[in-house]
Amino acid sequence: MINPDLQPGERLDGLPAQDIYIIQNPDMFSYSLDAILLAHFAQVKGRGQGLTVDLGAGTGAVGLFYAPKTVGPVYLVEIQAQLAAMAQRSVVLNRLQDRVQVLQADMQAIFDDIRPGSAEVVLSNPPYFPLNETTKVNEDEHYLLARHEVSIDLPALVQVANKLLKNNGKFYMVHRPERLAEILAALTARKLMPKRIQFVYGKADREANMVLIEAIKSGRPGGVRIMPPLVAYQDNNEYTAAMHEILYGTAWQ
Amino acid sequence: MINPDLQPGERLDGLPAQDIYIIQNPDMFSYSLDAILLAHFAQVKGRGQGLTVDLGAGTGAVGLFYAPKTVGPVYLVEIQAQLAAMAQRSVVLNRLQDRVQVLQADMQAIFDDIRPGSAEVVLSNPPYFPLNETTKVNEDEHYLLARHEVSIDLPALVQVANKLLKNNGKFYMVHRPERLAEILAALTARKLMPKRIQFVYGKADREANMVLIEAIKSGRPGGVRIMPPLVAYQDNNEYTAAMHEILYGTAWQ
Repeated sequence: MINPDLQPGERLDGLPAQDIYIIQNPDMFSYSLDAILLAHFAQVKGRGQGLTVDLGAGTGAVGLFYAPKTVGPVYLVEIQAQLAAMAQRSVVLNRLQDRVQVLQADMQAIFDDIRPGSAEVVLSNPPYFPLNETTKVNEDEHYLLARHEVSIDLPALVQVANKLLKNNGKFYMVHRPERLAEILAALTARKLMPKRIQFVYGKADREANMVLIEAIKSGRPGGVRIMPPLVAYQDNNEYTAAMHEILYGTAWQ
Repeated sequence: MINPDLQPGERLDGLPAQDIYIIQNPDMFSYSLDAILLAHFAQVKGRGQGLTVDLGAGTGAVGLFYAPKTVGPVYLVEIQAQLAAMAQRSVVLNRLQDRVQVLQADMQAIFDDIRPGSAEVVLSNPPYFPLNETTKVNEDEHYLLARHEVSIDLPALVQVANKLLKNNGKFYMVHRPERLAEILAALTARKLMPKRIQFVYGKADREANMVLIEAIKSGRPGGVRIMPPLVAYQDNNEYTAAMHEILYGTAWQ
């Protein structure tokens, strides 16, 4: 591996199943299981030659974990300069600079760089929380923008995804189940038809804490498939076989 | 038990967990696991003195399995005369005639009998399939009306439920997961806010084949809870512990 040349506060987190490593700084932002599960859930069309865009890429986890599944170009779009710079260093670290490009920009202003209707796949692990009176505005700014809908909200995100995608292109998003009704409404309002949904449960007897969604541009309504439940931990707090396979296994293609 | 006095083609199906028996005629219509799971999923407000309405009751399974959880009046609304008559005989068979009443009527024309805004709980196991070119119109009429949206469709059903319910009253429905997006859209359009959703999976590694939904009238948007996955069968084809408890257990109150 290339020397990651870590700066103060940084560390290197890896996903064994994909042999990909991400430069992280927990003081600013860390990816979580959500990013890994989204990259795993997202499918590849044909031989994966199409364009992929990761919207709100942070340090690049989703797009970089997904990249080995494809052979085509990948854009990592991130508004925060420091996170985008870390993502760029991770791109080089993983020797993906030939086809993975970091775009430090507001995702609503990327259409000079990425042509509308050109993406086969759009990925997003967006801010989960609406901006409201309970938002802790004194939270660290990097976390604030990553967690709360400060710079983009759900309808605007879906709008950008829709504009980027080709017809029949696919939008993959991870989000919180408590916003499911809003999510499905935002998607269907823009003719991004939900096709596959998977709920993630910490344990088999707990409520879901994550939802993975696939929507297809200009798809036909109806026909949502609810995939088998993905349970993260066994009763003994070890990973389930399914989760272990995602983190350490070989079933990514 | 009162002599069920079965007619030709009829049989008596029971739910041990509730000590309730339903007169069935498989030539016309049989309830299925869906009805049992809906009656189990539906909660009771306070001491259960409020009014309950089962919309599209068929032979009365949902409303009759739910009735022992409450002490208040229950209406079973069924458009088909033969099914309504069987439901009426099941009411008597279960000695529930003091508080369970069968209303043979189109559910859109019940408001002379049931006052708008009077129901605490509305239950429905509605027709699952849209009426379209693939509908087998030569199917037996009883099954046709029970399975296909001939006499009522999803938006109209939700409209009736909404009109029946008090503010903060609850609507419980079982449906097919492939229609999830439409269901949530129909509910939220009428201010019936989805609050609890549970997916039912035949086995742990299968896609969901059923969805149970609780929505609250005039509830606040957001805050959907996705309950733990309900898996019906173990790998060895025996019921899971959770399903066995619902069918034979004592956890209905």
